[in-house]
Formats: sequence, C-alpha cells, structure tokens
Amino acid sequence: MNGAESLVHTLLKSGIDTCFANPGTSEMHFVAALDRIPGMHCVLGLHETVVTGMADGYARIAGKPACTLLHCGPGLANGIANLHNARRGRSGIVNIVGDQATYHRPLDAPLTADTEALARVVSAWVRTTQTPQEVGRDTAEAVRAARTHPGQVATLILPADASWGDGGEVAEPLPAAAAPPVDPAAVDGAARLLRGKGEGRTLLLLAADALLGDGPSLAYGIAAATGADVMAQFLTGNLQRGQGRWPLARVPYTVEAALEALAPYDRIIQVGATPPVSFFGYPGKPSQMFPPQAVLHVLSRPDQDGIAALRALADEVGATALPPPQSNADSAPLPTGAPHAEGLARVLAALVPEGGIICEESVSFGGGTGPAYDAAAPHTWISLTGGAIGDGFPLATGAAIGAGGQRRVISLQADGSGLYSLQALWTQARERLPCTTIVLANRRYQILLGEYAGVGANPGPTAMDMLDLGNPVIDWIALARGFGVEAARTDTLEGLADLLRASLLRDGPFLIELVI
Amino acid sequence: MNGAESLVHTLLKSGIDTCFANPGTSEMHFVAALDRIPGMHCVLGLHETVVTGMADGYARIAGKPACTLLHCGPGLANGIANLHNARRGRSGIVNIVGDQATYHRPLDAPLTADTEALARVVSAWVRTTQTPQEVGRDTAEAVRAARTHPGQVATLILPADASWGDGGEVAEPLPAAAAPPVDPAAVDGAARLLRGKGEGRTLLLLAADALLGDGPSLAYGIAAATGADVMAQFLTGNLQRGQGRWPLARVPYTVEAALEALAPYDRIIQVGATPPVSFFGYPGKPSQMFPPQAVLHVLSRPDQDGIAALRALADEVGATALPPPQSNADSAPLPTGAPHAEGLARVLAALVPEGGIICEESVSFGGGTGPAYDAAAPHTWISLTGGAIGDGFPLATGAAIGAGGQRRVISLQADGSGLYSLQALWTQARERLPCTTIVLANRRYQILLGEYAGVGANPGPTAMDMLDLGNPVIDWIALARGFGVEAARTDTLEGLADLLRASLLRDGPFLIELVI
Repeated sequence: MNGAESLVHTLLKSGIDTCFANPGTSEMHFVAALDRIPGMHCVLGLHETVVTGMADGYARIAGKPACTLLHCGPGLANGIANLHNARRGRSGIVNIVGDQATYHRPLDAPLTADTEALARVVSAWVRTTQTPQEVGRDTAEAVRAARTHPGQVATLILPADASWGDGGEVAEPLPAAAAPPVDPAAVDGAARLLRGKGEGRTLLLLAADALLGDGPSLAYGIAAATGADVMAQFLTGNLQRGQGRWPLARVPYTVEAALEALAPYDRIIQVGATPPVSFFGYPGKPSQMFPPQAVLHVLSRPDQDGIAALRALADEVGATALPPPQSNADSAPLPTGAPHAEGLARVLAALVPEGGIICEESVSFGGGTGPAYDAAAPHTWISLTGGAIGDGFPLATGAAIGAGGQRRVISLQADGSGLYSLQALWTQARERLPCTTIVLANRRYQILLGEYAGVGANPGPTAMDMLDLGNPVIDWIALARGFGVEAARTDTLEGLADLLRASLLRDGPFLIELVI
Repeated sequence: MNGAESLVHTLLKSGIDTCFANPGTSEMHFVAALDRIPGMHCVLGLHETVVTGMADGYARIAGKPACTLLHCGPGLANGIANLHNARRGRSGIVNIVGDQATYHRPLDAPLTADTEALARVVSAWVRTTQTPQEVGRDTAEAVRAARTHPGQVATLILPADASWGDGGEVAEPLPAAAAPPVDPAAVDGAARLLRGKGEGRTLLLLAADALLGDGPSLAYGIAAATGADVMAQFLTGNLQRGQGRWPLARVPYTVEAALEALAPYDRIIQVGATPPVSFFGYPGKPSQMFPPQAVLHVLSRPDQDGIAALRALADEVGATALPPPQSNADSAPLPTGAPHAEGLARVLAALVPEGGIICEESVSFGGGTGPAYDAAAPHTWISLTGGAIGDGFPLATGAAIGAGGQRRVISLQADGSGLYSLQALWTQARERLPCTTIVLANRRYQILLGEYAGVGANPGPTAMDMLDLGNPVIDWIALARGFGVEAARTDTLEGLADLLRASLLRDGPFLIELVI
C-alpha cells in the first residue's frame, strides 16, 4: 500500500467521505488511489477558491468536515480567502495539499513555494508528512484537529514521494478532543451580572453553536427571567430562522448603527461571541462598538459548548428554555415594482421552502437581517463569516452537497463579490444541484462607495471608475449559460417571484439576475 | 498632506504611473488620493489574480514596474499565484496592500490576517509602514527594490491610519542598485570550458535578459567560434522571435525529452539560467535533466547583466556577435481541416503582425516551441514563468497596457487554466485593448492526463471525472460575451485563420474558441 492509499483509507475510516478537489501533478497519486478505493464522493471545482468555499458550506450544513485536494504553493494560495472565512466561522476542513517530493524540493523547481507558510496563515493545525509510513497517522491527526469543537481548518501537506512511496499504514480514527468544559466561575460571574442592578441593561450576545438547537430558547428563557436582552453576533456561520424559531436580531455592520443598538448595555455576556468591534478602523470613530463603560464577560469561548454554557447559566438563575413565539406567514400580497431591500426580503421569505437554505452574500443590498424572514417557513441561513468576499457561490454549492441535494439553496449574491468565484456555477451544473442564485446587480462596488463616503467628500472620476462595474455591463445570463446554468433577468419584484417559483420546481441550478 | 497622498506623489516621481487595482475599504484613502492627484493610470481587475497577472504582463512589455493596489490579507492571498509567477520570471512589481489601522489590528476584527506572512512568500522586499511620515520614504524604497535588476516583487503594507493620517512627506526617487558586475573569474572559467576538449559538447544555456537585445547574437557568435551550442531555458519571461531573430530552441518540458536534448552536453554554461531540473519529481526518473557527469558553470546569475556577461565572454574567446540567419516567411498555403499543434503554429505564425505579442499559456497543446514561429514577422513571446496556471488572460491584458495599446496581443490559452482568471476579459473590454484570445478547448485537464499516465495505469472513472471539463461543456462564447468581449467558435484551421484575421482589424478584444 502506498502513502496515498493509506491516506484515502484513513480518511474514509475517519468518516470523511467527500472531497472537493482541484488537483495538479503532485496530487496524481491521490487521484489514482481514489480510483482504486471506492467510497469517496469527489467534487471538482474550477478554481481553488471554489474548492475551499465549497468545503466551508459543506461543513456548515453536514456538520462534519470534508477534505479538499489542492495543488502545492500557489494552488493552496488560491484557496486561502475562503479558508480565512472558514477559520473565522470555525468550519472543520481537512486540506490535503500535495507538494514537491522531499528530495526534489531543494532543487527549487519553478513551482516550489513555501506551502507551509501559506497554510499557517489560515490553519489551526499544519503538518508536512515526510514518509509514506507516517501518512496514515498524520491523516488521522488532521481529521481529529478538524473535528475539534466546533471545527478547525487542518492542513496536511503531502510531498509526492510520501504519496507514491510504499509502506503506507491505515490509521484508526482518533476521537476528537472534548470541548473544554464550561467554567463554573464564568457561569457564576454571568449570573451575578444578570442579577446586578445598574443604569444599563444586560445583553446576552450569542454566536457559533449557541445559535443552534436549544441555544436561543435557553437564552431567551434566561433573558425573560432576568430582564436581559438577546442578540446575535453580526458574522454568524449558521442561523436557524423562520416560523418556530426565535427572531434574533444581529449586531449591525456599520459602526453608527452598532453603537446605537448596543448603547443600552453596560453588561455584555459573550456566549461563543467575540467582543463587538468594527470591521475596520475609521478616522474619528471608535473601534469598539459598545459603551466604553460596559463590562464584557465571557460565559463561553467559541471552542466551548455554548448550549451547555447557556443551560448551566439557566440553572444558576432559575430559568428554563422559553419556546419561540408563534409567528405566522405574511399573508399580505407580495410586493411588486422596482426592487427594494424590504421587498426582496418579503418575496424571498414568502417563497423559501421549509428546510431551505438561504446563502447570503448580499453585501450592500438586502441586508439579510430583515424581520420578514422571521415569518418565513423554517430555514437555515448561512453567510460570510470572515469578510473575504467571494464566498457566496462556493458556499451555496457546498451547502447543497452537504444537504445531499435534498434542500433547496437560495443565494442572495452581490454582483461585485460574485465575480470572484462565479466558476462555482459550473460545479452546480455538473452536480445538478438544487441551487437558485439571485444576483443583485447594481453594477458597482456599492459597499465601497459607502466606505469611500466615510473618507469624506464625493468620489471623483478616478474613484468612480475604480468602483464601477457598468463599463461594460456584465451579462450574468451569458455567464451562467457559459457554465451550463439556466438563467433569466428581471428588474421587478413580481418578475423575481415568478422566476424564483419556477426555479424551485427544477432539480438543478438556476440563476436570476435581479437588476437593482 | 496625508500618507496616501505622499504615496501617490512618490510613486509618480519614481516613474510608476500605472496602477492595477482591486481595492477594498482599507484602500479608500489611496483611491481618494488618486482622485486629487492626476497622472496615475488606474486599471480595475475583478479579482486579485487578474490584478497581479496584469502587473506581470505590464512589466515584461513596458520594461518597468507598475504598482498594484490590493486589499488586506485574503485580498493579497488571491493575488499570490500570479505574484509567484512574477517572482520566478523576475518581473518588477510594487504591491501596495492596505491593512487594518495599527491600533485596530490587536482587536482581531474578522478580516484581520497575517498580511506580512503572505507577502513574504512571494516578495523579495516587504515592509509594513507604521506612520504617515514614513510612507514616502518606504514607497521610494519599495520602487527601488522592484527595479533591482532585472526586477523584483516588492510589497508595501499600508495600515489605514498611516494612509489617512497627516504628515505625509514626498520622497525623492532612489536610484536602483546596479546589477552586480560580471565576475572575471566566471568569464575565465566559461572560456576554459569552451576551449576544453572532451567527449561531449558545450551548451550555452540562456535565460532572462540574456535572451533580449544582443544576447542571442553574442551567444551564437561565441558558439560559432568555439563549437558550442545555444539553448534557452524552458521557462522564459520574454523571447524575441520571428524573422531577423535567432531561432532559439528551448529545453523541453518533459523529463524524457529534456534528457534527450541535453544528453550531448558535458559542459553547461548558465547565462542567467538555473540548472535544468524537472518541474516535479517522478518515481524512477531523475530530477536533474542533464547528464550526471556534466559540469555546470555559472557565467552570470539572473540578477546580473547577462548581455554584459556574454560580451565579456565573447571578448575572452575572441568572438563577435553573429547576426541571425536570413529567414523568410512561410509561403506554403495555410493548413486547413481539424486543428493540430503544427497547423495552429503555422496559422498563427503567418498572421501575427510585426511587433505583435504572443502570450502563451497553451499548456498541453500547441507547445509554443514550434519552429514555425521563427519564420513569422518579428514578435515578442511571453509565457508562464512559475508554473502557477491561470496567468494567460491577465498577462495578455497587462502586456497590452504595457505596450500602450499599440501592439496586438494574441493569446494561446488552454481552457482549463483559462478558467482560473477569465475575469480579465472584462478589463480587456473596459480598456478596449487589442487582445485576441484563442481558447484551445479540449474540454479536459489534458496535461494532467499525461501526468496521470506517469503514475502508471489508465485513469479510472474517478480520475477521468476529476480531469474532465466536458460535463457540462463550457461555452466560451457565452462567457466572453458575458464580460463584454466579442467571440466566435470554430473547429477548423481555416476558420481560425478567418477569425484571427478579422480580429486583427478590430481595435478592441476578441475571443476565438478553437475546439480541438
């Protein structure tokens, strides 16, 4: 058995059965091993950013890691942006990166690069295997690292001779380390804050797994018992929304809106959440978006079990889980006419099927926090976690695969960011995935026009030119068809509703260009 | 004056007047400065791999660096693959990478990443400026680094507060360091090898600037006087080809072919070239593609002046530059029928206009080493230097800009690698560039099928699936039109000739899908 074969056997034994791939020469032995060993579902991406973004989407929906197969150096580099997002969202991914044979590396052949340095920027765990004998063991350790709660990026670098050499040994799966237990002192401290009297109010700020399962009901139960409020972190990997779920507000994106939303709180209890800081520093604006006098208290870190922490806190303050309020579908007629953000939300909320997945990279339009979605059929909401734009198309594609093709994925995709990774459309067509993409075509980098305004003054001709996507106008219908995906364009909300309904009847992908 | 303004002024003073950009929030102050200070030609790319690839193409043709404007962390990461190629090809580039404000970085906001670590993988020079006062000085040093002979990748990381803060000071241009002088001992050693008697022959192996200007004529003059041979390194940034130029053979790509081509030589004199090693290690094949007993001698390193080295060597052995042999245009009728590699070369060689640029990322088809091109009108040949695929479209786009839109660029673009960076087509349309792309559509990763064969056995269904681009077929005509570029398809050589001729009459870009 060669190293590559021991790799595939160990992955399968460890429960990794899906591989997102864009292989090169140094990965050919892995591909050959896949030919000989059945059981791995291989999904090809046309660019590594598609590959890594798919793995992120898969992990969020399947709840377990997939592996990627990436080419050395620049191949891995191409996938870093979406690995950054996965790292920030704590998705588990096992990257398998081929590399030069150990004896070939010192010759500094043209494609040789510092693959390890690139991997370290986005990985919690990195190892370069040296011999075929070590491949199985290292693979099992990589999977264990990726499964570390709630998920980590693990990168195994595999020199070609470790892959092709004989002596591979299949390793037994290693149990993932248990999440560090909730600290009773942290629970006690949170309870004191909740019981404390003060001018301001107390906020339970949820993120990560505290947003799933019983997390929101426990948080609202605690809030009801203590007079606190509940909010979700702005960047969240996975939200459960719609009827029968708690309508969670998120901390707003802009500094001004976040400062206003968080102004009432002088005690903030973080449950898997990080302190609310702005995305960027801006001249004359604070970086911390909460009142300066506020006390921040960590009930649980992202690597701990947020639901267990909430349960312990509920016990401590004598609260129980509070079921979500009844919410009914919006019975008003659907909005029509020119697209606007609230109308888009109402159309989508009315039509998203039960169990559907909404993948949001809307950037400047449509927000995604619209309360309209709280009246929708129960659905899952996934969005950008690390701010590296271009994850929408791949994330949706991977999510559809993570759901075994059984759940419709509807994407809200800004046009500017969509152009970073549109190649994922081809994988949607190839795998016949139930993906509907709504491209929000404003034909400019609208978010940057807003950021430019923060710099002061009106954009001049150079700035307008660098933030404009309208010269020439990008034809999304042609692009989608080029990749084998059916598509149509509309500039009205009724047109959107018609096309969205039609897309839901299809088995495969569809793209709607919504001119806004 | 703020830091960003001092940056733009210093760039312009230092002779950098072209900026390839894909800005984000942390770069808005730079964009605002460009609005206020005239003189910088800004070119927008839809993805950072397009931006960095354009800068490489520009440097190769303009003979001087451009700057790029890239977003922090993942933005730079997206551009690394083509910076790797630029590094290997020794193109001068000044990267300006925005980053979190210095005081904001410790807060670990979502988009924070190790921008410096990413930069170091591909840059000869990296600096993170800390204050507005230092921006001008650091910019001048970055430009000097990029201009270090024959060119280097220099990366200046600019925290947003260094950009927006007051106190910027324009710096005077710094003279680029002179290339280290040719070592007389190296010249003497080369002369001894050329005069030496032995079983085998002597090879002058040229790369980098030794391939330009008088380099080939000097090398052939030396060869004629001493009985040596002349060859070019496989990966070369810039070749002068066609009538009135020396028909230089390149060391072949595959190990077998290279071993055969280099078998006669037991003395190899490197003029800017690196030792001929294989791209990858393969089981049972040597990594070094020259005879084991061969003596390798460095006449000049890539950072030295290759033409001066050849001139010194010619003086030493009593040789003079030998003008290229007369070569005439191929008067045979153009080939017709189904495309084949030699036919493609003959069509292209017959039609490339004088002074045209051929940009080659043909990967598995068409080679590019075809002797047909030696009979073509004089033209420049640029191709992949670092093995990171996906440089073709951006390289051609940047080359057209580097030539001021005055030279036609004809690209031989493999379909698989073209899909990494097709977004460059939009920039071609936007800038109305004289670019003709011939997409060589075999609808599979043909090169990897060859590499797979090296692994042994025939590819099974999994391998075929992962190396296949035909399910669904990618419609390049639709993709080009989506980005605003006219396009047509053909599957014959006469169709190619007709479309190529028609494209040459246009001012703007055109894409031909050649089904092979």
